[in-house]
Amino acid sequence: MANKTTELFNLYKDIGQKVHHDCGSQSITDILNSISLECIRYLKRVNKKSLFSQIPDKKYFSFEIKKIFSRPVNAELWLEDVDFLKKFFIKLRGADLRGLSISDITKAFYTIAMGFCCFVDLNKSRDQKTPGTFFEYLIGHVFARVLGVNPRRQLEVLNLDMKSTLPTDFIFDLGPKKAKLHLPIKTSTRERVIQVWAHQRVLDGVYGTGRFRGTLVCLTETKMDRNSLEVIEICLPDQWRLYQMFIAQLTRVYYLDVPRRYEELNRVFPKITVAPFGQFFFELEALIS
Amino acid sequence: MANKTTELFNLYKDIGQKVHHDCGSQSITDILNSISLECIRYLKRVNKKSLFSQIPDKKYFSFEIKKIFSRPVNAELWLEDVDFLKKFFIKLRGADLRGLSISDITKAFYTIAMGFCCFVDLNKSRDQKTPGTFFEYLIGHVFARVLGVNPRRQLEVLNLDMKSTLPTDFIFDLGPKKAKLHLPIKTSTRERVIQVWAHQRVLDGVYGTGRFRGTLVCLTETKMDRNSLEVIEICLPDQWRLYQMFIAQLTRVYYLDVPRRYEELNRVFPKITVAPFGQFFFELEALIS
Repeated sequence: MANKTTELFNLYKDIGQKVHHDCGSQSITDILNSISLECIRYLKRVNKKSLFSQIPDKKYFSFEIKKIFSRPVNAELWLEDVDFLKKFFIKLRGADLRGLSISDITKAFYTIAMGFCCFVDLNKSRDQKTPGTFFEYLIGHVFARVLGVNPRRQLEVLNLDMKSTLPTDFIFDLGPKKAKLHLPIKTSTRERVIQVWAHQRVLDGVYGTGRFRGTLVCLTETKMDRNSLEVIEICLPDQWRLYQMFIAQLTRVYYLDVPRRYEELNRVFPKITVAPFGQFFFELEALIS
Repeated sequence: MANKTTELFNLYKDIGQKVHHDCGSQSITDILNSISLECIRYLKRVNKKSLFSQIPDKKYFSFEIKKIFSRPVNAELWLEDVDFLKKFFIKLRGADLRGLSISDITKAFYTIAMGFCCFVDLNKSRDQKTPGTFFEYLIGHVFARVLGVNPRRQLEVLNLDMKSTLPTDFIFDLGPKKAKLHLPIKTSTRERVIQVWAHQRVLDGVYGTGRFRGTLVCLTETKMDRNSLEVIEICLPDQWRLYQMFIAQLTRVYYLDVPRRYEELNRVFPKITVAPFGQFFFELEALIS
């Protein structure tokens, strides 16, 4: 396995090199394609251990090698159909996913992200950073590819007598007279999510309310107990409502695996639109205008 | 060493038990006293390795056992005078430190906090959580002891048709017609500090601006390179200024080892009062009225 790990980590590092020059380039799509197919082929040969899901209507399993478990994987969102993924990558190369359904797009990105994360879980113990960075590369690339714009990771603050730079998550500037996107990307949020609203508040204050549309993209909120093999989702919907009322407004929260208790937020005040990631590709124009 | 480690960790766990019942009790002062003296006696026999300080007018060393290094320790703030500390603990037991200077109080708390942190660094690899929790216990205890009030860690939000609880850092409620204290406690802040301003903003929004006085207490912002043995302070003063202007206002930031570049914030707009921790005991009344 050492060779496979080295090979996949080298591909991952390749993206890290390229992402700073041209985050949306086809060559990154091609590397993601290679990584994804390798991970799926590898994971097809690994034992799938069923987990005890405490989440209504969701089934989870974990890849397992000699008592080493991957993070939990949503059985409905996990695709093993290599042919489908090959076709998906051809469409992503063309930067146009609109022929596909919201559900298929979400599943494809879930599988690409989870495949690599689970590979790392099984082969590098205690490595949380690599999966998180990979997920940032993946989502950042997709936005750059679809929007045709490279993101920035810091902004100039020019404010009367004050001049400094503000480090942020990805920012996509689509030119004058359009809203800009503020894109935080997280594999999971937990209590750290307040940072996202706080960054949005600073952007609103410095540049004008709503000029940056806060668009949070997350993988999942699942948590697995390695002894009992139970899976739960850690959600703080009431906190989110307070943040949305008292800190700033996020425009969208996209999940690859939408947590059950955050779905409700679409239906109560203050409205927080929580949607499967695939929906982004169908409402992109509305989001930036 | 295994015995000493077990003994000290048991004392530490004792505090964890007691802190929920009566955070300011004399019995906690006594345990802190025992832990502190044990740590100092232990560290007196350990090699001190001088570090290359990149911070103007500050000298640092690291305790070292067989190439295992503790976090950097500020040589000026580290007390080895066991007699002084014994007297200090007698005063703390009486909940009145006013006979001492700001500088002596700050050094005493620095030594108590750092002694345990360095002990853990040397005896438990990769354990960041225990030193952080110990520091929370220490500072939470001191506030409870001096204010004569137990802190809360969540607040009820009762707001028209909304009812929920808001988890927060320590909150000290001094009764009606007084300001309340919002007390986040961190061994270091880095980029996570934005959470503190964001929590303050939620409190301002829910309960009224300024009703909670934001009082951040930190140990240090030093970072040591284990290869070159260089020590730097990681400071983001321009970010802090933006947070203070655009998110919320913190009333005080206390450090046990005040970072050089945050001292400047006392002298520029927007004013952020950054002070050595000892100062708290001399301005307490002003802070809550």
